[in-house]
Amino acid sequence: MKKKGALIVVSGPSGVGKGTICKELLKDYDNVEISVSATTRSPRDGEVHGVNYFFTKKEDFEKSIENDDFLEYAKVYENYYGTPKEFVLNKINEGKNVLLEIDIQGALQVKEKYPEGVFVFILPPSLKELKDRIVKRGSETEESLKLRFSKAYEEICLMKEYDYYIMNDEVENAVERLESIIDSQSQKIDGNLEYLLNLYKEEI
Amino acid sequence: MKKKGALIVVSGPSGVGKGTICKELLKDYDNVEISVSATTRSPRDGEVHGVNYFFTKKEDFEKSIENDDFLEYAKVYENYYGTPKEFVLNKINEGKNVLLEIDIQGALQVKEKYPEGVFVFILPPSLKELKDRIVKRGSETEESLKLRFSKAYEEICLMKEYDYYIMNDEVENAVERLESIIDSQSQKIDGNLEYLLNLYKEEI
Repeated sequence: MKKKGALIVVSGPSGVGKGTICKELLKDYDNVEISVSATTRSPRDGEVHGVNYFFTKKEDFEKSIENDDFLEYAKVYENYYGTPKEFVLNKINEGKNVLLEIDIQGALQVKEKYPEGVFVFILPPSLKELKDRIVKRGSETEESLKLRFSKAYEEICLMKEYDYYIMNDEVENAVERLESIIDSQSQKIDGNLEYLLNLYKEEI
Repeated sequence: MKKKGALIVVSGPSGVGKGTICKELLKDYDNVEISVSATTRSPRDGEVHGVNYFFTKKEDFEKSIENDDFLEYAKVYENYYGTPKEFVLNKINEGKNVLLEIDIQGALQVKEKYPEGVFVFILPPSLKELKDRIVKRGSETEESLKLRFSKAYEEICLMKEYDYYIMNDEVENAVERLESIIDSQSQKIDGNLEYLLNLYKEEI
């Protein structure tokens, strides 16, 4: 009998820096493994099947959708992206924590399929700061920026569906907070009671 | 509007080392304050009212019991000991985390009065190890030792009422795990949603 791992879903508004936090976390922290997505887009140079993505044919992906094989999926332009349920649950049953970085809509899909997950919402220090970060990226038109910003507060309200928040004031602090959240999951009794009692049962 | 703190209740079987873990934690860690108990016993040399205990007259203590002013209390021989509700809740409302080290019966009393608390169960590496530790203390007769040991597994089963466990294999590790549990409480959305949303409300 093994202790179960946790699914850690890191999410938040676009531009809040969730990608950077996860990248920094994975550099030195070995209590978590990254979730590998499936996609129908073609591999880019250097991308390895099973490491960067599970590269999947469109018809297979659509069959998997029908079979409810994804914790979440989305179609972005012509390509599908999704989180394979079996891959994640296998890791968790092996006792590993799995990290999934994903946008808010994706996270809410995951929550429906796997409410036992640990949902972490990354917050900007302020709405102004979030706007500045999106502007700096330079990938938005004036109009899409306005639209995005008008939705920012609405998006932040969705944190009510989440378990934990992290204020991304400094990346280093944010990473530390994420580590403490993941570490504390390994100490939870819920879901591991039988495993824990078994440790002592033989002695009586 | 302030962020609320958490009540961290550290508990477990007698002899498991919960006192040592809490003492070590408090040496370097400043994200928590210790809860101060009320007692009807006389102050010992050097003990300061409000620091070591709130020294209370028996009649006042009994009035407080009637008024439901304690999160838990117990009578040990002729003296009462209790955790003053107001003292703890004031700290929590000021945003401070409060640490309460207490036996299992006390912790279960606290859970009834304050289920929002964070209940941490300290586990021994094995029942044999727990027995050895109690024997080493030397404060038990052969008979009371037998009685205590026969109850040890029963007591461990009570961890089902708790949120987190910590295996006390090495004190240093146990302290680190307790720190991550306390740190992660500061990141919880539940109970702080309104406070968090207010941070952004003014900007829209």
